[in-house]
This record gives sequence, structure tokens and C-alpha cells, in this order.
Amino acid sequence: MKFGSYSYDEYIHLVKSFHGNLAPGLIIGGFIVETALKNLPEGEFFDAVCETSVCLPDAVQLLTPCTIGNGWLKVFDLGRFAVTLYEKESGKGIRVYLDTEKLKSWPEFHAWFFKLKPKREQDLETLLNQIKEAGASVLSMQEVRVKPEITVKRRLGSTAVCPQCGEAYPLRDGASCLACQGKSPYVS
Amino acid sequence: MKFGSYSYDEYIHLVKSFHGNLAPGLIIGGFIVETALKNLPEGEFFDAVCETSVCLPDAVQLLTPCTIGNGWLKVFDLGRFAVTLYEKESGKGIRVYLDTEKLKSWPEFHAWFFKLKPKREQDLETLLNQIKEAGASVLSMQEVRVKPEITVKRRLGSTAVCPQCGEAYPLRDGASCLACQGKSPYVS
Repeated sequence: MKFGSYSYDEYIHLVKSFHGNLAPGLIIGGFIVETALKNLPEGEFFDAVCETSVCLPDAVQLLTPCTIGNGWLKVFDLGRFAVTLYEKESGKGIRVYLDTEKLKSWPEFHAWFFKLKPKREQDLETLLNQIKEAGASVLSMQEVRVKPEITVKRRLGSTAVCPQCGEAYPLRDGASCLACQGKSPYVS
Repeated sequence: MKFGSYSYDEYIHLVKSFHGNLAPGLIIGGFIVETALKNLPEGEFFDAVCETSVCLPDAVQLLTPCTIGNGWLKVFDLGRFAVTLYEKESGKGIRVYLDTEKLKSWPEFHAWFFKLKPKREQDLETLLNQIKEAGASVLSMQEVRVKPEITVKRRLGSTAVCPQCGEAYPLRDGASCLACQGKSPYVS
């Protein structure tokens, strides 16, 4: 069993070091990304879409060249456990998702995924074993095409100094930066 | 010179391997995150805010325990080159930003940051040397408090099966999943 260029154990080690703990979602995530990598559409370069912000983006960042900071991974907070790898220009991609129908054969995995048991009643070892055993058998694939507005690389354009905060910002955002336009994450 | 627990050269190696190339923004990012780490507010646990989606989130992910997938890093696309590390409960944090006033002493660095030269006229070696030499001297710090709505951990709540696509989704999103409500990133 390989995840990208890593053995299963190497991947688990990476997950603990990067993500901070062995989240079950990242083991499933390993199978999801590996399945997508094995079924890549034709083309030289691909980007990634992740349909949840929980756990799964880190599997993409560990197993593909796509990261948040290099812009090749885009996260859409749709709450679906799915990853798409798509050819950059055409948007043609392969979407891999956790198939809830197939999950029914794995009671601990199913109960965890649908939050049917309080955390203290979960058996983590059984859960991790079921996820590993189930592997790609609980996944399904779809061919998709990513919307053109997502595949187009947004150019940053000119940089200006915001007259309010004095920091650099993309001029396309307006006469002042977005933070000074009310989108600051801080209490003023 | 250290970035987190890494030497400068180890960090550069990590950047190339994770981010895919030695982006100048990730070298400045190393200094930004290191400065924030050295000036952490009191408290045991901290989360991160990154004010741009370009390059800088990867410096946070490489040098702190905060990643997109574990939810400890939040990216706000404000186009400002700044990172805040804040205490999880109180929201009290230290914000480190690139100070455009201080940048004026470094012509190649300044010209690159404000995109004053076409890429083909840039001297990458001089630029990287100036960024490394300038280091934390072009940064400034602020004490900030992150808005409570950002520090509060959003609970996912119950999971249901979407009657349209058949996939699992957070029930709080409504009677069907957000993708089926029109937010799908794919051409239908």
C-alpha cells in the first residue's frame, strides 16, 4: 500500500508531524488522494479542489504538489468529503468521494463518519483498522469539469499603499485595503 | 539564524519540497512567522491568521503546528502580507507585517514587492540576498485582538445524507448540501 511516494507508515508519520495528530479523516484522505492520483486525467499539470476544510486539505498538501500557499489547492467549504484533481487548462478532472452506500459494511467507520456515537464510546483502534482495511473500497469516482472561473488564474495586478493603514494591498480591491473597508479580522 | 526549529538551509529545503519552488514570499514569510513565534502572547495554545492567500500560508504551515486541515490556520484574503498568532481563548495576538516604510532601504526587494520591474528585469539572486539580509528589520509588530466570531470553534453538528447527490453533508447547511444548493465548483 502506497500513498503517493510514501509507504503507509511513512504517511502516518508525516500526518502526525504536519497535522499534529492521527486524524481518521487523514487516513481516508490518503486513500482519496491516492485514488485520484492513480486516475488522473490526461495532461501535464493539475490543480486540486477539496470540498471540505476539515482534515482533507492536509492529505492533498502532503501527497500532491498542491498547497494553499502556492494556489494549486482550492478549498470550498461544502462539507462533502471529496477531492478533485483536474487538468489546469481544460478543468477536466477526476472527483473521488466517500460513498455513504459503501460505508454501510463498516459499522465503526460508518458510526464515526455519521457521528452516531459519542466520542467516549468510540473504539479508536477498531475505527482506524476499519478505515485502513476498507481503504479505497468505500470510495467512488466521477468525471467532472471545474468551472472556468475557478480554473482561470486571477492576476494580482498593481500593488499600492493603503492610505488608511499604510500597508501594501492589491489596488484592484479599491481605494483602501479590504481590512480598512471593514473586513479586518481584528477588534478595532 | 533559525526558523522555528530549522536552520535557514533546512527551511529553504522544506520550502522547495512543500511549496514547489523557492518563492521570495516564503523567505520573508519565514522571518514573519519566526518573529511572531518569538513574541507570542501568554497562553498555552495559539492559532494563526494569515492575511493573504499568496505564499505566506505555507510559511505558517511549515513553521507552526497550524494548518488549513487542522483548522488552526485561517486565511483571510485581504492581500496584506501579515500573520497573527493569537491565544485561542482570549483572541489576544501579535501581528507581524511587512512594513513598507522600512522596505525603502532595499531597492531590489522594494521593486519586487511593489511590482515596479517586469519579471525579466528582476535579478533573482540580488532579490533573495536582500530579503535574507533585510530579515526581520523590514517587519513591524502590533498587538491585536482577533474577533470573537473567529476564535469560536464552529461545531459541525449532525451529518445527514443529501437527498439530491446522496453524499454526507452537515445538516446545518439546510435541506440539501451546499453543492446542490448551487455552490458546486463543477459545470453541471
